[in-house]
Amino acid sequence: MAGKIYGIGVGPGDPELLTLKAKRILEQADVIAVPVKEPGEYSTALEIVRPVVDLHGKEIHEVVFRMDRDVERRKACRAEACGQLAGLLRDGKDIAMITLGDVAVYSTYMYVNNYLAEAGFETEIVPGIPSFCGGAARAQLTLMEGNESLAIVPSVQESGILAEALDRFENVVVMKAGGSIGRLKGMLEERKIPLQCATVLSRVGMEDEYVGPLDPGREYSYFTTVIVKKGR
Amino acid sequence: MAGKIYGIGVGPGDPELLTLKAKRILEQADVIAVPVKEPGEYSTALEIVRPVVDLHGKEIHEVVFRMDRDVERRKACRAEACGQLAGLLRDGKDIAMITLGDVAVYSTYMYVNNYLAEAGFETEIVPGIPSFCGGAARAQLTLMEGNESLAIVPSVQESGILAEALDRFENVVVMKAGGSIGRLKGMLEERKIPLQCATVLSRVGMEDEYVGPLDPGREYSYFTTVIVKKGR
Repeated sequence: MAGKIYGIGVGPGDPELLTLKAKRILEQADVIAVPVKEPGEYSTALEIVRPVVDLHGKEIHEVVFRMDRDVERRKACRAEACGQLAGLLRDGKDIAMITLGDVAVYSTYMYVNNYLAEAGFETEIVPGIPSFCGGAARAQLTLMEGNESLAIVPSVQESGILAEALDRFENVVVMKAGGSIGRLKGMLEERKIPLQCATVLSRVGMEDEYVGPLDPGREYSYFTTVIVKKGR
Repeated sequence: MAGKIYGIGVGPGDPELLTLKAKRILEQADVIAVPVKEPGEYSTALEIVRPVVDLHGKEIHEVVFRMDRDVERRKACRAEACGQLAGLLRDGKDIAMITLGDVAVYSTYMYVNNYLAEAGFETEIVPGIPSFCGGAARAQLTLMEGNESLAIVPSVQESGILAEALDRFENVVVMKAGGSIGRLKGMLEERKIPLQCATVLSRVGMEDEYVGPLDPGREYSYFTTVIVKKGR
């Protein structure tokens, strides 16, 4: 009988923010699949799991997703990775593929999930705490109250949608904001949104976490989140 | 020494979606505080916790938040509830107050948190899986991929922000949508967004869950969520 693949969200960083279900499935699985950009790369998701899941006797399988600029080469790399996973499933092995935060939020697992589901394999997703919920808890902030709305926008070159979100939504989460704290500060100032409405959350739950005001003088990791609450 | 209060997100319904931290803190706490609208009311959050947390010997304390139309009476009721919790904390008891989903998403706990933090008590928030992440996992959908954005909007009478979200965002989560499935269907049709782009998620993880297309003929619970993915 073929195995089953699970996509597991391991949460934002604190190993204790794994769910009971994630822990159980990781301990039952034959193979822990770890997405990496290069073979041998350090995996934050695997380090999160290690202190709370018994990995003794597990097969750790790297799933290499190269960030090649060439779309065709990227596709070929993904197809090869999925082919390897399909081989393990055909051998009857259950696979748990881990991903930082929640599976539905910017993870590569869904590509694998859809590929393997179409190939007829059984798939299941176990949600995880997304970084913005972990960050809001750490900063003791709400994301939305009463009948408020929330926009979640990645900070990228083209910032039309970020501008609209800041204009129209009471609450805005800016994801992947590490490289654009200065630009975001400018956008808030243009809109006369007081800077104390913004809270930067960088590497929450890690040893070098930063939770505080916008400070363009600092260096931030790519996975930095900013919560803007206009009503604050 | 005064006790500490924890706000605990218990996730969307499946008891196994509690985090390891939520379970530990609920088991260590002296008092489990349960928000209710009326004394003796059934608490979904408490029923979620029961199968996975040892509640033996715990003091279960109802925190009554009446949904009074009168703002002053509502405030007085909240102040009384917070005063009771402060009394328990002064007695040296640690309190874990549970809330459905994530603490930062439409929960009343944050009012309690801010009140008690201002009164000088120690507070901590343990995030939970929000309903929209639980729902996306159940339906095997992403909330956002690549550089996509997401708008999360409650379905209320005034739907200007929902209209804008549907116009501008690739992905829209409509919360509290139980009473307005017909209206939402009309808004999608007006915008020529195919109806198969919308997935309704009602009581996910519960026995009577519904995950499927928009069907205005059905009855839905208040806590129904709709995920609209225009790119689907």
